[in-house]
Amino acid sequence: MIKENSLKIFNSLSGEKEDFVPIHKDHVGMYVCGPTVYSNVHLGNVRTFLSFDMIYRYLVHLGYNVRYVRNITDAGHLTDDGNVDNDRFVKQSRLEKLEPMEIVQKYTVDFHKVLEMFNALPPTIEPTATGHIVEQIELARQLIEDGLAYEVNGSVYFDVNEYNKRGLNYGELSRRNIEDLISNTRDLDGQGEKRNPVDFALWKNASPAHIMRWNSPWGAGFPGWHLECTVMSTKYLGETFDIHGGGMDLKFPHHECEIAQAKGAHGHEPVKYWMHANMLTMNGQRMSKSTGNYILPMQLISGNNDFFEKAFRPAVVRFCFLQAHYRSVLDISNDAMIASEKGLNRLMEGIRHLDALKPSNESTFDASKWLEECYAAMDDDFNTPILISQLFEAVRAINAAKTGSGSLTAADIETLKKSLKSFVFDVMGLKSEDETSGITDKIDGVMQMLIRMRNKARADKDWALSDQIRDELDAIGIQLKDGKDGTEYSLN
Amino acid sequence: MIKENSLKIFNSLSGEKEDFVPIHKDHVGMYVCGPTVYSNVHLGNVRTFLSFDMIYRYLVHLGYNVRYVRNITDAGHLTDDGNVDNDRFVKQSRLEKLEPMEIVQKYTVDFHKVLEMFNALPPTIEPTATGHIVEQIELARQLIEDGLAYEVNGSVYFDVNEYNKRGLNYGELSRRNIEDLISNTRDLDGQGEKRNPVDFALWKNASPAHIMRWNSPWGAGFPGWHLECTVMSTKYLGETFDIHGGGMDLKFPHHECEIAQAKGAHGHEPVKYWMHANMLTMNGQRMSKSTGNYILPMQLISGNNDFFEKAFRPAVVRFCFLQAHYRSVLDISNDAMIASEKGLNRLMEGIRHLDALKPSNESTFDASKWLEECYAAMDDDFNTPILISQLFEAVRAINAAKTGSGSLTAADIETLKKSLKSFVFDVMGLKSEDETSGITDKIDGVMQMLIRMRNKARADKDWALSDQIRDELDAIGIQLKDGKDGTEYSLN
Repeated sequence: MIKENSLKIFNSLSGEKEDFVPIHKDHVGMYVCGPTVYSNVHLGNVRTFLSFDMIYRYLVHLGYNVRYVRNITDAGHLTDDGNVDNDRFVKQSRLEKLEPMEIVQKYTVDFHKVLEMFNALPPTIEPTATGHIVEQIELARQLIEDGLAYEVNGSVYFDVNEYNKRGLNYGELSRRNIEDLISNTRDLDGQGEKRNPVDFALWKNASPAHIMRWNSPWGAGFPGWHLECTVMSTKYLGETFDIHGGGMDLKFPHHECEIAQAKGAHGHEPVKYWMHANMLTMNGQRMSKSTGNYILPMQLISGNNDFFEKAFRPAVVRFCFLQAHYRSVLDISNDAMIASEKGLNRLMEGIRHLDALKPSNESTFDASKWLEECYAAMDDDFNTPILISQLFEAVRAINAAKTGSGSLTAADIETLKKSLKSFVFDVMGLKSEDETSGITDKIDGVMQMLIRMRNKARADKDWALSDQIRDELDAIGIQLKDGKDGTEYSLN
Repeated sequence: MIKENSLKIFNSLSGEKEDFVPIHKDHVGMYVCGPTVYSNVHLGNVRTFLSFDMIYRYLVHLGYNVRYVRNITDAGHLTDDGNVDNDRFVKQSRLEKLEPMEIVQKYTVDFHKVLEMFNALPPTIEPTATGHIVEQIELARQLIEDGLAYEVNGSVYFDVNEYNKRGLNYGELSRRNIEDLISNTRDLDGQGEKRNPVDFALWKNASPAHIMRWNSPWGAGFPGWHLECTVMSTKYLGETFDIHGGGMDLKFPHHECEIAQAKGAHGHEPVKYWMHANMLTMNGQRMSKSTGNYILPMQLISGNNDFFEKAFRPAVVRFCFLQAHYRSVLDISNDAMIASEKGLNRLMEGIRHLDALKPSNESTFDASKWLEECYAAMDDDFNTPILISQLFEAVRAINAAKTGSGSLTAADIETLKKSLKSFVFDVMGLKSEDETSGITDKIDGVMQMLIRMRNKARADKDWALSDQIRDELDAIGIQLKDGKDGTEYSLN
């Protein structure tokens, strides 16, 4: 079923687009770095997760059996190695007087709620860092045994110099040079324990005040951040797996350290294709809590914010994100969102019209060629903006067939019905206007009834009643639009 | 703020209703045994979780700061100690050819979806068994050191005889006698390892085929089922905590073993109040997949089943459950659900009318006494059926005030508004008819418009139009009801 060798993926490791050839035929193992659940998920991270959701959906659409692992980082990890006070969980939990796992639960629930709102599919496995302490201790112990890590004062560090001496090439993903890294490393508390400033923690000794702690061969402590992803990805996907994804900002040091840990332990590259999603800006600037150029996902949906003139439904945000390639920076602004809303409405309207089209004997549109171009776009490293432009070509053909300025055969209408819907709903994960179909059916019934009443009033030349119906509906936020095929309505 | 000593809780350990006095003033620690995520959650379990959701909500309503821990059992546990082939996860994963953690993810997502549908609040911590392997190994090791457990062939068993010799009284919760237990224990594979047939596994040696396995001081293995709850409850709530809840079926052996593990390790009772929720039957019979007298929660909501004539919205199911006391067996049937739906609609209608009531100088209803009786019902071991009968008293008073056969003062209306809504929405967790308020506002606007048009038609003696509007709405499933205060509508 799967067309071999048609999909190309940009591999951050080689810096090139490569043919996608899975390690095990018809199966794909994909690992994506998930959220750190110590605060509400950032809109930029949402973009990353929706990018990989689209990639997951397309792989499934192509017929692959995908095992998609996305972790939850719930063990406090250090922003700077060796500075225990920077452990963000502990900070927050002192502040809010919560048990760290209460914070974890609060923000895990929030994260799931936000991603569900944006119609992201759950991964097939969602492992937690705290659920893999035994395995992390085991890997740290193995790396010590192999001479690639060392213990100091109850902490375990990865020995980057030793790793490089063995020709394993630390810095290969981010293309960084170890000498530059050393000279750029700030001198931080606890660095004194390390043989080399670029060494990174596999396990940290817990101070008595540190709440999140586990027994280990080196005393009570907690895992370093990078260790969990190596352990969880290889546990569920094998020592070598197909795709590892994450935000661009994770390339260094996180993914670099993952490679070092895995290559150190298993002697070979852990990942065939490294994929990185680009960042989101707002009004041309980086989003950041400290500058105030910042918005929570829920605020964008509720309209309760200072940046956008109105609320946008989640599908509009998702559509806006997909209008940029996942490897490009995407800027959101009021104008961009308004444009996305219009575009999405036009797309959905096209799909609605499709169901009512009457087939012709000839087509003014080449549906087979169109379909090929849709796949060509997605096969070219998941190029959703090109796919979307193709979908609008289809909408134009549908509208032309509707107004009579073009035509479609029954076969072409079938192709469009199947493929347009499949790309829009399955691959891009967009939802139609609303999902509350029971209520929608009722409102549609009532609206058809009012349109009939208004038509009768017009036939009776009762202009007062006809205008009254239109004006009162307008006041409620429902617009009537008279066209050659009758009257249509739209809910604002 | 909290009224001291008014709440009474039936304690399964003493077999009596006792004054509820929390260990730490104003705080409550509550642990509830969560689902085993190897299949869809059972409707009977949903009842248990909704019972404890109501209990949690009422404790929060009273002003307590509640830490509510409900676990996820995601490590395969044995149905019979010592019989590895009965490990249900492994069985299912061979069958479906899934990694056990894929099954865990699938059914965890389903579980959360079902509970959210029924408007259950998430617990404040939701720990997993696999997330506490280190702590479980630690507790098993401690019990060996204390002489209350022993290792055989890589497995660790709790020594019930030794525990009883120390006067610690195994069987105190379920009121079982150890001699009876021994004579009733079947002879199963692996029992030969135990010193005594009632001994239970703390840690099991994993056969080579066993996928879920962790390194331990006794070799690769996995924890026994009972250990996780002792470890997770005491880790997050302390060595002694206020409330431990679960389904009646967990009393023995699960909760009995939890007590033994904790008393063995810490020397005292772990739990002040043990609470057990009773079971759910359908059409007078136990629900069971094997007899076919079985329905999934989603099938009850979708109407896609052989037992009920229609679909029921989740709030109706929740309301039906709350109409029985949590310690009573509850039987659901088509008639019972239809009655619950009518009752809930009447309750919600009363709340809607409340907002439009005009105050009088005198009341024919004693709102303060009513409020006291509501609290008296809930303070009497969470007696929701009595609370509901009180809520209907309030609805009767509202309806009387509406039709003029009774009256309510402004103060009484205020009391009802605040307390009736608080009991219905906050404590009982019921949702009004639908939550899709944007669409609902629009349909309400259109309906008011149609009612005005119909009124005008009637004033103009245009009976044809007036009837046409009523009949067409009826065909869509919207009923008009003319009353002394004007026309109301209901959506079917």
